[in-house]
Amino acid sequence: MKKNVLIIGAGGVAHVAAHKAAMNNDVLGDICIASRTQSKCDEIIESIQRKGHLKDPSKKLYSRRIDALDIPATVELIRETNSEIVINLGQAFLNMSILEACLETGVAYIDTAIHEDPDKVCEDPPWYANYEWKRKDRCAEKGVTAILGAGFDPGVVNAYCALAVKRYFDKIETIDIIDVNAGSHGKYFATNFDPEINFREFVKVWTWIDRQWKEYPTHTVKRVYDLPVVGPSPIYLNGHDELHSLSQNIDAESIRFWMGFGDHYINVFTVLRTLGFLNHLPVKLADGQEVVPLKVVKALLPDPKTLAPNYTGKTCIGNFVKGIKDGKPRELLIYQVSDHKAAYEEVESQGISYTAGVPPVAAAMLIADGAWDTRTMVNVEELDPEPFIAILDRIGLPTEFKEIEPGSAESFDGTVRDLETEIAESTATVTISAANPMIAVAPKPR
Amino acid sequence: MKKNVLIIGAGGVAHVAAHKAAMNNDVLGDICIASRTQSKCDEIIESIQRKGHLKDPSKKLYSRRIDALDIPATVELIRETNSEIVINLGQAFLNMSILEACLETGVAYIDTAIHEDPDKVCEDPPWYANYEWKRKDRCAEKGVTAILGAGFDPGVVNAYCALAVKRYFDKIETIDIIDVNAGSHGKYFATNFDPEINFREFVKVWTWIDRQWKEYPTHTVKRVYDLPVVGPSPIYLNGHDELHSLSQNIDAESIRFWMGFGDHYINVFTVLRTLGFLNHLPVKLADGQEVVPLKVVKALLPDPKTLAPNYTGKTCIGNFVKGIKDGKPRELLIYQVSDHKAAYEEVESQGISYTAGVPPVAAAMLIADGAWDTRTMVNVEELDPEPFIAILDRIGLPTEFKEIEPGSAESFDGTVRDLETEIAESTATVTISAANPMIAVAPKPR
Repeated sequence: MKKNVLIIGAGGVAHVAAHKAAMNNDVLGDICIASRTQSKCDEIIESIQRKGHLKDPSKKLYSRRIDALDIPATVELIRETNSEIVINLGQAFLNMSILEACLETGVAYIDTAIHEDPDKVCEDPPWYANYEWKRKDRCAEKGVTAILGAGFDPGVVNAYCALAVKRYFDKIETIDIIDVNAGSHGKYFATNFDPEINFREFVKVWTWIDRQWKEYPTHTVKRVYDLPVVGPSPIYLNGHDELHSLSQNIDAESIRFWMGFGDHYINVFTVLRTLGFLNHLPVKLADGQEVVPLKVVKALLPDPKTLAPNYTGKTCIGNFVKGIKDGKPRELLIYQVSDHKAAYEEVESQGISYTAGVPPVAAAMLIADGAWDTRTMVNVEELDPEPFIAILDRIGLPTEFKEIEPGSAESFDGTVRDLETEIAESTATVTISAANPMIAVAPKPR
Repeated sequence: MKKNVLIIGAGGVAHVAAHKAAMNNDVLGDICIASRTQSKCDEIIESIQRKGHLKDPSKKLYSRRIDALDIPATVELIRETNSEIVINLGQAFLNMSILEACLETGVAYIDTAIHEDPDKVCEDPPWYANYEWKRKDRCAEKGVTAILGAGFDPGVVNAYCALAVKRYFDKIETIDIIDVNAGSHGKYFATNFDPEINFREFVKVWTWIDRQWKEYPTHTVKRVYDLPVVGPSPIYLNGHDELHSLSQNIDAESIRFWMGFGDHYINVFTVLRTLGFLNHLPVKLADGQEVVPLKVVKALLPDPKTLAPNYTGKTCIGNFVKGIKDGKPRELLIYQVSDHKAAYEEVESQGISYTAGVPPVAAAMLIADGAWDTRTMVNVEELDPEPFIAILDRIGLPTEFKEIEPGSAESFDGTVRDLETEIAESTATVTISAANPMIAVAPKPR
């Protein structure tokens, strides 16, 4: 039994996690929200109070200021707050320093994304091996529970893979994780979470095909798939954190990730990327000033938190799994649908933050009650998915299932052809031409 | 008779002007090219030498370093170089300090654009009254020749207006200045001159309609006109320097300016502007750094000088004049066609720099021989256009004329309707919607 939660971060995802933690503080104990800007933490606390979400009023809910790159300060904060579970929802650049503080204090660690080095993007797979997994032995030695990637994707989709293995398939052939936000925020252009982190995802597409890593240029492989509730959606092959662990832990020929983008998004993104605005490395201006273009993009785009009040529509994220059960082909879509407006009404947040912020709290509850208190480092698919999915059903992210007639019109064929064929057959609106060289990069299969 | 020319600036336009000055140094005398970066001046001199363009080898061609915001240093440079004519082709922020140095030394001043304050864009009309014209009396008192806006537009198009008045019309109704670059630089996106100055032009559209200033949002009024040589071209109502003086000096109901933009340009421009990248005022990044987005745009776009070697196609700039001659309606297009490749072959520059860089040298030649040595401040349309056009015919920018049957299919109807009608009838690809508020700004007629 572990208790008292330290949430690090005060963005949209932390906002949701703090609400959900407060709504379950009979299990989780005291809650401290800490970030570099303490006033942002206090705004979250005000929102929780406004909604009357503190279930057990005898438990504390308070804020602290922390620079989480400062390991001794984080150690001190963990001790001062008596926290036994740290939920890291800060920028992905902080992961290793927060994990280090957890190792030093022996408390449990949860995050929702792979560690990032500011100077690198889309690192060689499996990316987890460059940072997190190097600390696996130390977690085991010290009996420190570290649950990696426990958001929605990575996170819940990893549990869906484990569930497919445990209950629905004898043999899995392919898994296609599909993430579509069919909502509308009413802005000209905005990202649903930190633009700086968001755009770093789209530099390269690392994907697990035929048990090998293959690299494709972004937005070159497009499909349209008719998902439940949100309907026919344009989706693009994309790299994503979960592939870097699922490729190691799930026995399947191919595991791919697809993300939904509308034509307007692709157009704006293509302009920004082609001109170099998504560059994470500094450029020198005429007057000598050094500026990281991506940080200017972040400053100019709407703060993702501000999208919430007017966001409408739904999200659908799920795993399309193909394989064999009892000697027969099976196709199953395991998915979750969330509603932006409902999320705002419940916790004053938009749906993307909601889907990412609820799961780490479910994971914390499972650490608190012992079910997921692994005393070592794991990715979500290594754990029993059923108690996790059961809590999510109860606290806002119910899972649904759609059995699909194998090879029917409702099937999803995620087979990726060679790049020339994909480009030739592409119906993407993005111009693929010599004038747009960042798209026409040749793939480097590994 | 004035001689010895000081060219300030070392960009694409200065490059062309220096070539043309060298090719006419029997009239102009010694030539000094000065800018903040002396090596850029030396590159121009190397280009002139490579082309063998120094007509009279007994005259000097050399470079100096100058910060032209430093008036005493500029005074010193004028004296040291014995220059009697200063051609200011630096950024428009420098105009007033260079003019001041000319006033102090009594030498002639030529520029090609209105003075700009870095913190302001598209100033209230007539913009010249905010800066240049405040110095008019001092120029007259001191007998200083100052010819404002002597590039192509402003410049040659102003002379075309004066020519229309002098030779072709008894009464002018409307003048539509049309500027189309139908060339191709082969890059994804680039501006033809300094992006920082270029984009500042497109914040507001001030235009002279029915003898009043009216303001329209950029790119809301589109026409397609079949120009000589370049053919049917999409053009947009735009503000431009010359309107600020022509409105005062030319007796016409309406004087409008139209600029050609392709759909791709409009798309990229709209993305950048709508997201705030064309902002000339600083924004604060998450880490506190202050950055002017427009300066980042400048750093990321290709240097306009680098476009020249691969530029193909032609430009067409001209005045469509409607009025009365000998009691009958008349419509006349007075225009000039330049070729990017021919410009590169002649002076190692692209066509836009060529059209802007040749005219100030023609003006300098007219000051040198006395024809335009006004001993006061003037805009180009106040001068006799014929010797100017005659020199341009001879040194690379020949003028052509197209007599058009009034009211025929070849007429240009530049009538601008009210904004709602223009938006409703617009065929522009740019989306005009609530999600694109920077376009849907209401006009403020004055």
